[in-house]
Amino acid sequence: MDGHSLDLALDGPALTARLVDFPSVSGQEKELADAIEAALRPLPHLTVDRHGNNIVARTNLGRAERVVLAGHIDTVPIADNVPSRLDDDGVLWGCGTSDMKSGVAVQLRIAATVPEPNRDLTFIFYDNEEVAAHLNGLGHVAEAHPEWLAADFAVLLEGSNGEVEGGCQGTLRVHLRFKGERAHSARGWMGSNAIHATAPALARLAAYEPRRPVIDGLEYHEGLNAVGIEGGVATNVIPDACTLVVNYRYAPDITAEEAEAHVQEVFADCGVDEFVVDDHTGAAMPGLSHPAAKAFMEAVGGVARPKFGWTDVSRFGSLGVPAVNYGPGDPLFAHKRDEHVRVERITHCEERLRSWLTS
Amino acid sequence: MDGHSLDLALDGPALTARLVDFPSVSGQEKELADAIEAALRPLPHLTVDRHGNNIVARTNLGRAERVVLAGHIDTVPIADNVPSRLDDDGVLWGCGTSDMKSGVAVQLRIAATVPEPNRDLTFIFYDNEEVAAHLNGLGHVAEAHPEWLAADFAVLLEGSNGEVEGGCQGTLRVHLRFKGERAHSARGWMGSNAIHATAPALARLAAYEPRRPVIDGLEYHEGLNAVGIEGGVATNVIPDACTLVVNYRYAPDITAEEAEAHVQEVFADCGVDEFVVDDHTGAAMPGLSHPAAKAFMEAVGGVARPKFGWTDVSRFGSLGVPAVNYGPGDPLFAHKRDEHVRVERITHCEERLRSWLTS
Repeated sequence: MDGHSLDLALDGPALTARLVDFPSVSGQEKELADAIEAALRPLPHLTVDRHGNNIVARTNLGRAERVVLAGHIDTVPIADNVPSRLDDDGVLWGCGTSDMKSGVAVQLRIAATVPEPNRDLTFIFYDNEEVAAHLNGLGHVAEAHPEWLAADFAVLLEGSNGEVEGGCQGTLRVHLRFKGERAHSARGWMGSNAIHATAPALARLAAYEPRRPVIDGLEYHEGLNAVGIEGGVATNVIPDACTLVVNYRYAPDITAEEAEAHVQEVFADCGVDEFVVDDHTGAAMPGLSHPAAKAFMEAVGGVARPKFGWTDVSRFGSLGVPAVNYGPGDPLFAHKRDEHVRVERITHCEERLRSWLTS
Repeated sequence: MDGHSLDLALDGPALTARLVDFPSVSGQEKELADAIEAALRPLPHLTVDRHGNNIVARTNLGRAERVVLAGHIDTVPIADNVPSRLDDDGVLWGCGTSDMKSGVAVQLRIAATVPEPNRDLTFIFYDNEEVAAHLNGLGHVAEAHPEWLAADFAVLLEGSNGEVEGGCQGTLRVHLRFKGERAHSARGWMGSNAIHATAPALARLAAYEPRRPVIDGLEYHEGLNAVGIEGGVATNVIPDACTLVVNYRYAPDITAEEAEAHVQEVFADCGVDEFVVDDHTGAAMPGLSHPAAKAFMEAVGGVARPKFGWTDVSRFGSLGVPAVNYGPGDPLFAHKRDEHVRVERITHCEERLRSWLTS
């Protein structure tokens, strides 16, 4: 074995350590993508495709269902925490141990050791997850080769502390613009105050009761919040403009269009002069009622939790593929200098997935 | 007559033109101050004092009342509008014609031609009115030699289009600070939104009914306005701080302390975490009920108007001297390239003041 290859016969923890010692900060994933491709190509049960530094490997067994196991191969910048270090308590330390090379190790172990899964499998290893959304490799593959990602269910092996996090909430950011008319503040009645004009909208926000819908048994928790406000011309001028930025986090039982319509409706009679969508990424259904997901939940055990934040499972959602987060890493330590993973979680996660895919 | 002296035998319009042709942009008033001092010193009925480039001249006739005639000698930067030009319609053009060398010319004419006024007179010619408040010569004299400004009534000859503007409103700027607790906006319920917390204060502002008190026959018009608001950490973070900046313009029947107490009271139950006075300059009473002012109003004629904005009359207010604005300039053209004054207004203003001071 040379310094540029991966030995898939290593166990999960050892393979994780190997992957961590193979630096792949966002934008510098080529070497690792090459190694993953080289490790998978010899496996006769897999068809391997590549798009940029994104590797897709698929079984083609004609099973009734197909599931995706997905993971990103990049990390945030290294912070004096590579090479990896395994301590006496069974904890592996280093950049990417939790986010998410332990998950990638599990993907590779399943790819190498489950040649005849009970469901057809699609593995995707993608780049640039830790940087701007438009660079994200999963998005690039979805755009260029959506058929590579066609499936009934997807598991994103992002660190979730070994618990299943179902779907994800959508996030919509809107600029509410209020207009007024300038005047000298000594003669305020000559103008119209755009900051005062935000009062009804802010009262609406303060009184807003977010929905907590239960979807596939998971209780989501929406939120509609101001995340910014800016207004004012000079300290002696009645301001003629004020912008209130609101962020709507919504559960996956409504569509992107319904989310925008809801925000419009909330502020319908609040004197908003302009309603500008600044950013919008949709929600993803947990899909736990799907047979593949039910079997998955039985195999991994525990109780699924809703995912409140936005993750790449939403990209599967937009492809019509229900998805969950389930991985060995601990999200609390992602991006931190003291990032680590308990090796028993890596082994446990691999076993649970193997059980689901072979029982 | 050389290029550095002033001939007080010139009529008001000619003296105004002479003063305009004697550039004195803020910070460069020494030469003009020297010329004013040199012109006044020979007058036997005046005691002349100097503090920096501020000249104070006083009669000492033991009259029952003393009034101040005040004017600043600086101008905003020249904008290709010097030397002055008198057109065929009796309009004098140039930097400072309106703001306020026509007023200074009237002061000088009264000083030179009314040796035995019916009220003791104090003339002050001061520098740096057009720049930062802490440079203002009237303020420097008030601080160093308050006794030079002791009087029963003051007329500031700032351009007021020949109308009397009584007193001035005070202006108080307050930062209302609201605090919250940060959280990821996907889990907004974990935090406390400081922007939402401003809703009651903004509703209070939007509903605020300003007072319009009548003082000495003048109807003032207060105002309480937001002039700035800022809050927000990042587009995915519940903000933990928001600052609302409000400006209270208040009539001169309340003190500075009462003004601050009023703003505190307006927002008393609005969840303000910190109340910080950012800037405060007091109001000035019109003092039109004072005998000297009544005689002044009878002499100048017309109906006094309230002054909504803040001017140097407030400095007299803080010295306990009721004050009005009354000058020949047109404030609408102050600081403009096409600044001008109707020469008949200069003559009229001088005549009215002479009438008041000699009848």
